[in-house]
Amino acid sequence: MDWSVLVVLPLVAVLATSFGAVAGEPVVPFVPGKAVKLPAPRMDRGLSLMAALAARRSSRDFDRRALDPQMLGDLLWAAWGINRPAEGKHTAPSARNWQDMTVYVVLESGVFTYDAASHALVPKVAGDHRAVTGKQEFCATAPVNLVYVSDFAKLDTDDAPRRERYAGAHAGFISQNVYLFCASEGLATVVRAMFDAQALRAALGLADSQHPILAQTIGSPAP
Amino acid sequence: MDWSVLVVLPLVAVLATSFGAVAGEPVVPFVPGKAVKLPAPRMDRGLSLMAALAARRSSRDFDRRALDPQMLGDLLWAAWGINRPAEGKHTAPSARNWQDMTVYVVLESGVFTYDAASHALVPKVAGDHRAVTGKQEFCATAPVNLVYVSDFAKLDTDDAPRRERYAGAHAGFISQNVYLFCASEGLATVVRAMFDAQALRAALGLADSQHPILAQTIGSPAP
Repeated sequence: MDWSVLVVLPLVAVLATSFGAVAGEPVVPFVPGKAVKLPAPRMDRGLSLMAALAARRSSRDFDRRALDPQMLGDLLWAAWGINRPAEGKHTAPSARNWQDMTVYVVLESGVFTYDAASHALVPKVAGDHRAVTGKQEFCATAPVNLVYVSDFAKLDTDDAPRRERYAGAHAGFISQNVYLFCASEGLATVVRAMFDAQALRAALGLADSQHPILAQTIGSPAP
Repeated sequence: MDWSVLVVLPLVAVLATSFGAVAGEPVVPFVPGKAVKLPAPRMDRGLSLMAALAARRSSRDFDRRALDPQMLGDLLWAAWGINRPAEGKHTAPSARNWQDMTVYVVLESGVFTYDAASHALVPKVAGDHRAVTGKQEFCATAPVNLVYVSDFAKLDTDDAPRRERYAGAHAGFISQNVYLFCASEGLATVVRAMFDAQALRAALGLADSQHPILAQTIGSPAP
């Protein structure tokens, strides 16, 4: 037996790990049909609410490095996590409990939805679709783009302007949670309403009744 | 000299203070043309962001007691305060910096707007207009109703559904700040999209281009 394997294998593992962080190997792998369970949220992290409000701002300068799974999971829990498991209720409100919103998570490895009940990422579309989430160049290279998608079939009103208002508010509630989490953790973020809606709907594989309302880019600040 | 005055006067002061709180004497007096300066926000108060997210919920059971000026001011700063004075920027974002939103503060003594730059309440309409901020009975008796009003003239788009979506999102950002502040301070709150818009516009004295988007009731929880 060649004992050198005992030396080489851990070295390869270390290199793979660090290359993963440096060269963009996916921290969240896309495997069709296989949900990615996120770590339980770390509730002891970050700033006070008042300090997070004081630090809240929009920033458009992103580093390309991926967020680690703990940070990504905590971000998603803050955005739209279940905070009352017995009732299945969320960190953000929903008018008449219509629950029309789905948070799409667009990463380098693919498009996922955030399943709040299981605190997991559900794979939807393979491949890097970050560029289509917006019109600015940073969308394509920042590690995380969230897209807040409303299912208009769940908004029980036939008043079209009202539907837009509800969907806008629902996306706004979630987006502000993300802003405050980013302020609390020193992450950069900006919310955006301008994107090619038809191209984005195609890239995310949305049903006819599903509409992207806002998109939000998140990453470490550019060095 | 009758020394009993030394006993009686402090007693009167104590009674006046407690009657103010119990019998609804206005904590924020409405004097036409006279802005009410709010105390500087207390930044050392409340929960961590993560704990506030965990505690966020809607509640419809309100006590009638007024909020003290410090609590009311801190609530408004959290909602839409200036957090970067050099740039005049706020705790919540505004698409393309359109700044269409005004927070109307409907108290027992009258209707005010929140002037973030001076952290003050600007009197608008005298009298108790709380009941018209919503359809539920609690609106009339809870101490604070905020109405998030968008000036559509400042939304530089002639796409009517898009305008509704932007205004909804802008109101949603602010409302979520209020939700988290209430969670952090143990206050009850619920956001509402259903109200008689025409009656509310008349009561608040809005211009033709101004539209109430969401209303939110705040108070101590019912005992």
